[in-house]
Amino acid sequence: MRKTSLAEMPCPVARTLDVIGEWWTLIIVREAFLGARRFDDFKGIGIADNILSARLKRLVGEGIFERHPYQAHPERFEYQLTQKGRELLPVIGALRSWGQKWTTGRTLNRMTHEACGHEVSVHLYCQECRRPIGGQEVRAERARESLTAAG
Amino acid sequence: MRKTSLAEMPCPVARTLDVIGEWWTLIIVREAFLGARRFDDFKGIGIADNILSARLKRLVGEGIFERHPYQAHPERFEYQLTQKGRELLPVIGALRSWGQKWTTGRTLNRMTHEACGHEVSVHLYCQECRRPIGGQEVRAERARESLTAAG
Repeated sequence: MRKTSLAEMPCPVARTLDVIGEWWTLIIVREAFLGARRFDDFKGIGIADNILSARLKRLVGEGIFERHPYQAHPERFEYQLTQKGRELLPVIGALRSWGQKWTTGRTLNRMTHEACGHEVSVHLYCQECRRPIGGQEVRAERARESLTAAG
Repeated sequence: MRKTSLAEMPCPVARTLDVIGEWWTLIIVREAFLGARRFDDFKGIGIADNILSARLKRLVGEGIFERHPYQAHPERFEYQLTQKGRELLPVIGALRSWGQKWTTGRTLNRMTHEACGHEVSVHLYCQECRRPIGGQEVRAERARESLTAAG
């Protein structure tokens, strides 16, 4: 019920949360970025088999993972991020940057720029001005009602 | 139970999801960026009063909102994003960018660069190279066990 209403909201944030807005889902995607491919790889995050199985099925259904067989008897599959799934990296990166600053605890994995080896961060960015911008430079606003009606 | 384990994971993505990883929570934060301050402002998202009340209380407890009285009889409060809360904007922005590309539906609000009026996007960024980088330029890796043991 709640999920359906999010999926139908006229807001891309809401619709994205409908697809990935559940704790384990993004942890599973994070594991894939860290190299997990097989069911047993993902189990390392401490998720129950039935929940992991349901989440992977949903993520395949949403086109975030593709399932490829790697063994015939018994049949076994690998899960690979699609382009749609790989483009979740900025979401993971934004969560990571916030968590590094605002939560306490260790950080056991790294996200680095392959070319230079330095940590990657995630920034609000203006394509027009070609520079990262701060939150205080951003205006968030609802479209006017007239625009709304026009679709 | 599940939330406790996320809060204690040695990963800032997991810890952040423990704080904000629930559908309505990020929608509430989005509304605050769009100007919502009072309980009734937030009700517009179509959330049940008791759930909204519980989420706001949690977000105040986590230091994402601050509560300020604006009326004495009866007592009423406004909710304002703290610095910690405002720094969730890149998370909202990353969800938004992904949703604009990968979900279908309308977009009724805008996130623009105040100085130039153009849409703001969210990018992976290398501070060292001072440029936005693509996902394929990022290496995500688990720290080696020896580093892990050293903390």
